[in-house]
Amino acid sequence: MTDLQIAQGAEALHIRDIASKLDIPESQLEFYGSNKAKLPLSLIDSEKASKSNLILVTAITPTPAGEGKTTVSIGLGDGLNYIGKKALTVIREPSLGPVFGIKGGAAGGGHSQVIPMADINLHFTGDFNAVEKANNLLAALIDNNIQAKTGNLGIDPRTVLWKRCMDMNDRGLRKIIAALGGKAGGIPRETGFNITAASEIMAILCLSNDFEDLQNRCGNIYIGDTFDGKPVYAKDLKAEGAMAVLLKDAIKPNLVQTLEANPAIIHGGPFANIAQGTNSVLATRMGLSLADYVVTEAGFGADLGAEKFLNIKCRTAGLSPKAIVLVATIRALKYHGGKPISELTEEDTDALKAGLPNLDRHLKSLQSFGVPVVVAINNFVKDTPAEKKLLMDHCTAQGIPVEISNGWAKGGEGCAPLAEAVVKAASGCDTRFRPTYDLEDSPRVKMEKICRTIYGAENVILSNKASRQLKRFETLGYGNLPICMAKTQKSLSDDEKKLGRPENFDIHIREFEIAAGAGFVVPIAGNILRMPGLPSSPASERITIDRDGNISGLF
Amino acid sequence: MTDLQIAQGAEALHIRDIASKLDIPESQLEFYGSNKAKLPLSLIDSEKASKSNLILVTAITPTPAGEGKTTVSIGLGDGLNYIGKKALTVIREPSLGPVFGIKGGAAGGGHSQVIPMADINLHFTGDFNAVEKANNLLAALIDNNIQAKTGNLGIDPRTVLWKRCMDMNDRGLRKIIAALGGKAGGIPRETGFNITAASEIMAILCLSNDFEDLQNRCGNIYIGDTFDGKPVYAKDLKAEGAMAVLLKDAIKPNLVQTLEANPAIIHGGPFANIAQGTNSVLATRMGLSLADYVVTEAGFGADLGAEKFLNIKCRTAGLSPKAIVLVATIRALKYHGGKPISELTEEDTDALKAGLPNLDRHLKSLQSFGVPVVVAINNFVKDTPAEKKLLMDHCTAQGIPVEISNGWAKGGEGCAPLAEAVVKAASGCDTRFRPTYDLEDSPRVKMEKICRTIYGAENVILSNKASRQLKRFETLGYGNLPICMAKTQKSLSDDEKKLGRPENFDIHIREFEIAAGAGFVVPIAGNILRMPGLPSSPASERITIDRDGNISGLF
Repeated sequence: MTDLQIAQGAEALHIRDIASKLDIPESQLEFYGSNKAKLPLSLIDSEKASKSNLILVTAITPTPAGEGKTTVSIGLGDGLNYIGKKALTVIREPSLGPVFGIKGGAAGGGHSQVIPMADINLHFTGDFNAVEKANNLLAALIDNNIQAKTGNLGIDPRTVLWKRCMDMNDRGLRKIIAALGGKAGGIPRETGFNITAASEIMAILCLSNDFEDLQNRCGNIYIGDTFDGKPVYAKDLKAEGAMAVLLKDAIKPNLVQTLEANPAIIHGGPFANIAQGTNSVLATRMGLSLADYVVTEAGFGADLGAEKFLNIKCRTAGLSPKAIVLVATIRALKYHGGKPISELTEEDTDALKAGLPNLDRHLKSLQSFGVPVVVAINNFVKDTPAEKKLLMDHCTAQGIPVEISNGWAKGGEGCAPLAEAVVKAASGCDTRFRPTYDLEDSPRVKMEKICRTIYGAENVILSNKASRQLKRFETLGYGNLPICMAKTQKSLSDDEKKLGRPENFDIHIREFEIAAGAGFVVPIAGNILRMPGLPSSPASERITIDRDGNISGLF
Repeated sequence: MTDLQIAQGAEALHIRDIASKLDIPESQLEFYGSNKAKLPLSLIDSEKASKSNLILVTAITPTPAGEGKTTVSIGLGDGLNYIGKKALTVIREPSLGPVFGIKGGAAGGGHSQVIPMADINLHFTGDFNAVEKANNLLAALIDNNIQAKTGNLGIDPRTVLWKRCMDMNDRGLRKIIAALGGKAGGIPRETGFNITAASEIMAILCLSNDFEDLQNRCGNIYIGDTFDGKPVYAKDLKAEGAMAVLLKDAIKPNLVQTLEANPAIIHGGPFANIAQGTNSVLATRMGLSLADYVVTEAGFGADLGAEKFLNIKCRTAGLSPKAIVLVATIRALKYHGGKPISELTEEDTDALKAGLPNLDRHLKSLQSFGVPVVVAINNFVKDTPAEKKLLMDHCTAQGIPVEISNGWAKGGEGCAPLAEAVVKAASGCDTRFRPTYDLEDSPRVKMEKICRTIYGAENVILSNKASRQLKRFETLGYGNLPICMAKTQKSLSDDEKKLGRPENFDIHIREFEIAAGAGFVVPIAGNILRMPGLPSSPASERITIDRDGNISGLF
């Protein structure tokens, strides 16, 4: 059975019954159909939240297909409920773009899924659309002002950093010349689109504390400069109010359920390679207010997901996880050990052994935060007993708790041992995490600390363009912001071909983007692009609908 | 009080109670919050629908601010309920773009509004977003295929007609060069964005009969040609299934309520100047299945709205209105009579008299369809008794029923006399409408018939580019499609400066677009643009949200 078939076959409870498991009365719910609801911000209770346990799920460097981090997160949430804990899975929303590309859905898999799976992977409750519209309203206002006869701010079109965005894998929009066609079109200039998850607006949505904070952050977005070199902000265009109004519903977390009818909250944007990548602060706080254990995820690998989750989100929001689960798969470790992707289902303990340095490097990075780490081996059908034993022994020898995660095949029951290990680890945690860098460090020092402590790199090399940009950002007073690295997820380095545990490499910063409203600086490393493309044979080719409206081919 | 304040002050019923007025059980509803719901297509009952009365509301040539056609439509729906009829208002959805530009909302005004007004004017239930994504998925697939190494269809980038779309007044996107940046960006080419309402996908959504029809129409979209001159369709990219899946919820009509707690259905896209412009066939059929009177609207003026409503939508769907309401305002007639826009609140019967030929021309056009016409004078506070008498006498002298419409000030009660007149007119109608042209007419003859019979023009002049395009479309077999003219709404002619009743003018077709899936040819007349821009001082500047999430400044 495909993931879609399993999801379609599930007997979903009405969302009001899911909410009642969290003691949320129906009157507080804003239904989106019978299986989705928006939750009011008033459900956040700082007192309760401070007593709950936040569990972060992250992963080793993934294969292109991903290592099932979401599946483990959902399975672990169900597993915690299975062993009698009041637990809630709180994860980020999927992006629509990749649905039509290569990757599968981002709502889990097998018997560890959130439903309604197709809706969650498509438009869901419209949050991404709202982010897109707020982002693109600002872009329209900028181009409109550049050519306006009255109220012109004197924006130098050559300096405008703000891009449009679209939640679509559309390579043709990466780099464009806009505003052509003579006077009716405005002043032509080079610009481009990011995918919506990479929009600063998504980060603002994810980091905002309330409506007012949301509006203020939108106003603080740095757009570019005037012809005489003064910085221009969104508030100079009086854009922040309309932008916040466009986001008035998107800011509210979304309640859904797992296949085992446990509650799950899904909110905010993905893509820790090119964005901050985790779910919203509001959703996490709400989850912690409603349950004793909150399982959240940050990926792709821990180098991107966990690093940003901790150094940006947790620091900003005053959160700290009680335990970190590092998801590893035998197939990915064999891949890192040099085995071709087509042969990963064959037993190969040598390749597995050769891939272990990738795991070890992530373990070392995570241990730098001072929070207990548990390894979860996401079980695949073709994994052999010898391979599993080798991997488990390797972890145990280092004193790292390790469990097989069987959520894909068996749901919560299959994750019960992992859940027990996580509860034990969390109960033993009595400290807050140690950040990788201080906010007072210079941007260059911050980047060096991330690259050395987390990636295991040697040096950080800036292009001339990047140096120039960084200098400008420091002049504008953004030197104290945290760093949100954009880097390939396929390697610890900035070169996607360097698998395993690369040694003796530098990180090359090509250019910067700035997210002054969200509150971070974005160094763009290597060849990473913030707008993905489609493959030669896109997944969209296999999707259809029948005359009754039933869909197929979606994963 | 502003429209927003009136709307916010209204005591809205739960949407389940609105549905029960139409005998729709709660189990059939898909809630979007407590005041919006999607309705299943199974509510359509052809037998019942055939016995109901369809009433079309359209207007004279409007001033830039609009003549309150939506206000009259909603008021008339409430008025019909007020006089004891089972009536339903079924109108198109607002576009987001103009919300941040000049024009007010598109959900009625004063005491004739649909609520929740802010939501309806913003993202509503996500239909526009879905249309946008389906449109832009196809665009991404085209650019992806143009540069694909395998599966390449040999599309000649210079021939691609398919544009991207965005529901934003963004002049900078009208004309762009996309796919720059070297190999990663694809093959550079000229293209552009239309506003989402002008997307062929919106028209497909509005004209489809069911999921299967929707998918087939998406597949039939004509994209452009191969290098060896063969036409390429969306189905050649296997795009239609994924596009239809993206539209699976958008195809379902939306139920809301009027300020008087009468049901209203809002579905499908606006802008009869640059699109087909009316609500969906499915929504109209559903309305006719649920009520005895369905009030719908088609604007801006009757030259665009009513013409397309009848010749495209009604012909395709086998519908025929029982009466047409022509909305006139004294202010607009004075404007057509030469009075400056700043002085329209002053009494001026001479200017009014001088403006009457605009009304008469629209009356003549509407009479060509053979359906009874009623004139509704949308009452403004500054209209004087002398002016009203003059206008009423003018209509009465021609034997046209005429009533004052007081919906803005008094809701349904204020529209009761209009409702009575409409019931009387509809009960006297025993014929179907007469189309302006036959489908078998050549495209040129069709255009001539529209321009002469409806606009009162002399000739249709095609640019060289337009002639070339038309020839290609006829070769491809699209000669039998109806015509969907894109023309300024500000004049009966294609020159927005020609107010009143222009004489001795030609219509100039600059170029064509083709909507082979929706099923019409789009001649683009004069200088009309299918992507609007923002004014120097956009309305967005006045919109804000407070810390409790309350919005203000939106209309």
